[in-house]
Amino acid sequence: MIDFEITEKEGRARKGMMRVNEKETETPFFMPVATRGSVRTLSNEEAHEIGFDVLIANAYHLLLKPGSDVIKDAGGIHRYINWPGIIFTDSGGFQMIRAGFDQDIMEEGVRFRSEVDGSTIKMTPEENIELQIDLGADVSMCLDHCPPYPAERDLLVKSVELTTRWAERCKRMGHDTFCISQGGIVDELRTRSCKELVDIGFQGYAIGGLSIGEPKEDMYRMVDICDKVYPADRPRYLMGLGSPLDILESIERGVDIFDSAYPTRNARHGTIMTWEGKISIDKGRYRKDHGPLDDSCGCPVCENYSRSFVSHLSRSRELSALRFATIHNLWFMNELMEDAKTAIANGSLRELKSEFKRHYG
Amino acid sequence: MIDFEITEKEGRARKGMMRVNEKETETPFFMPVATRGSVRTLSNEEAHEIGFDVLIANAYHLLLKPGSDVIKDAGGIHRYINWPGIIFTDSGGFQMIRAGFDQDIMEEGVRFRSEVDGSTIKMTPEENIELQIDLGADVSMCLDHCPPYPAERDLLVKSVELTTRWAERCKRMGHDTFCISQGGIVDELRTRSCKELVDIGFQGYAIGGLSIGEPKEDMYRMVDICDKVYPADRPRYLMGLGSPLDILESIERGVDIFDSAYPTRNARHGTIMTWEGKISIDKGRYRKDHGPLDDSCGCPVCENYSRSFVSHLSRSRELSALRFATIHNLWFMNELMEDAKTAIANGSLRELKSEFKRHYG
Repeated sequence: MIDFEITEKEGRARKGMMRVNEKETETPFFMPVATRGSVRTLSNEEAHEIGFDVLIANAYHLLLKPGSDVIKDAGGIHRYINWPGIIFTDSGGFQMIRAGFDQDIMEEGVRFRSEVDGSTIKMTPEENIELQIDLGADVSMCLDHCPPYPAERDLLVKSVELTTRWAERCKRMGHDTFCISQGGIVDELRTRSCKELVDIGFQGYAIGGLSIGEPKEDMYRMVDICDKVYPADRPRYLMGLGSPLDILESIERGVDIFDSAYPTRNARHGTIMTWEGKISIDKGRYRKDHGPLDDSCGCPVCENYSRSFVSHLSRSRELSALRFATIHNLWFMNELMEDAKTAIANGSLRELKSEFKRHYG
Repeated sequence: MIDFEITEKEGRARKGMMRVNEKETETPFFMPVATRGSVRTLSNEEAHEIGFDVLIANAYHLLLKPGSDVIKDAGGIHRYINWPGIIFTDSGGFQMIRAGFDQDIMEEGVRFRSEVDGSTIKMTPEENIELQIDLGADVSMCLDHCPPYPAERDLLVKSVELTTRWAERCKRMGHDTFCISQGGIVDELRTRSCKELVDIGFQGYAIGGLSIGEPKEDMYRMVDICDKVYPADRPRYLMGLGSPLDILESIERGVDIFDSAYPTRNARHGTIMTWEGKISIDKGRYRKDHGPLDDSCGCPVCENYSRSFVSHLSRSRELSALRFATIHNLWFMNELMEDAKTAIANGSLRELKSEFKRHYG
């Protein structure tokens, strides 16, 4: 059972508390992505020390490697990856269904080719939830069908219908599961998808199929629809959204949960998030810049090292540079979420957003 | 001034204390290699937390990138790389003189082509020490001439003579400098090199040109010669030696200081050092091995993760795997040095060595 309590509101934005399996976290929150059980370049202790309570791993990737038998055998994913907090697992539907895979979508479920050994794997929605239960996830995600952007209306309709039927089957598994709406950026289809999922009834409601190339206005309009149709007393999760401003905009529209590889992937490409905007640390201009990555940051990298040193390591292709950037960017994301929670409590979320926009750009 | 005090002896092995610039460390000690100012994959705080007091950086690499002006400008290398302990810098002579460089050795000094911008750099022994002083090193190393193995006698003679003349010029710079003996594995030449350096008189005495392919017996015989000729009351440093058994053998022969990329480079290739020998963690056989990397290890990786998880990360090419292996292997090296010091104090170094050999192989 996922316990969710809203403690403060500002407009549609909500601050609250989510509890599951005797673990809790404040909302809204951001989940670093630990696809294979580890946030890239970090230990999970470090992700925890930065301030995160919740990670999201990927059931599909963990099924292929090391195998769910290994993780079950180890006593579950929490023990296996040393994460005492809440763990979400993504179904991996997105990965299974995405191009590049020899896959096939059937009423029954998905069929895809393992990228590890080339074998054909069939998976029903039920088996997928079973897999997430086997892994030991606190919160599982429904297997859904996510169409590409742009997609023909026919495909969007098919995806909404299939996603609903699969969600019904997932629900029957009795786990603490979030459903996921589809429908692309077509108001009527998104509304229909949300309504059908609400009729089934879930502990949490995710918004899928966005942040895949559609215009921002369309994305926000879809979030507005979900906010209207989804039950107010259940947590909402906008999947795969990671740019700070998009997150603030979505919090304002009633979203509670986010996950994205955005801060960590950017870090590995030398892009540092600062309160004055993004910078590319491998540029020569930082060679003699002895200030911290970000003047107003209290992360261990900013406390201990200069832009000059991180830039030197980055230009020398040292792995520590990727790591330093990752720690800093995740610290930034955590601060952003802390600021958002404080702002909701103070009724100043709108000011936070415009202030942020003015500096970050 | 390098202060060095021997507090315990067992045979020729020595336990002691080295102090320089109000920083101190017990001897014998092992220095992790921070060529460009950072131990690969780690933050310097982590290297310190593992237990190390001393790092060795490379003056040549730091000259090329980020430039000694940058590090001087930052207030010196300690501040630049956030290392409060002792820092040795290697002259970089080995790198400058090694194959692959368009270089030329002259009486005056070395001439080589920058691998960064292709420009020709000339460097006298005096300029090299000046560079190490500019960087802010606590201990500098003489520019020496290290011949390859095997080398003709003529080249070995030339290298001994040049190394002596350069050492004289380095000494005049008045820094806390270690000299380096050469002479390959020819008793007479090694003896001559050591004697000439002792005549000049240095604060510390290094053994160079070994661990580059020669048979172990020859290497140990050279260490024996150095032990006999070098003054007993000054620290001795065997450069570039990193295999645990070689280190124990050399401690027994009166060596106090070691550095090597051995544990960190092995780590990045998936080789884990354990008290029962080395293992290749990326092998499939560890897939379901839920024990720690090493049963008798107390490092944070062994405390928190299983062989199965580290193996999974390694086979998934996650950078955290390189990092976990590095932390573990350096922890192992630090434990080994701690054990050696305790053994010298207890008069049980020989037992430690045979016990180690029996298990590690």
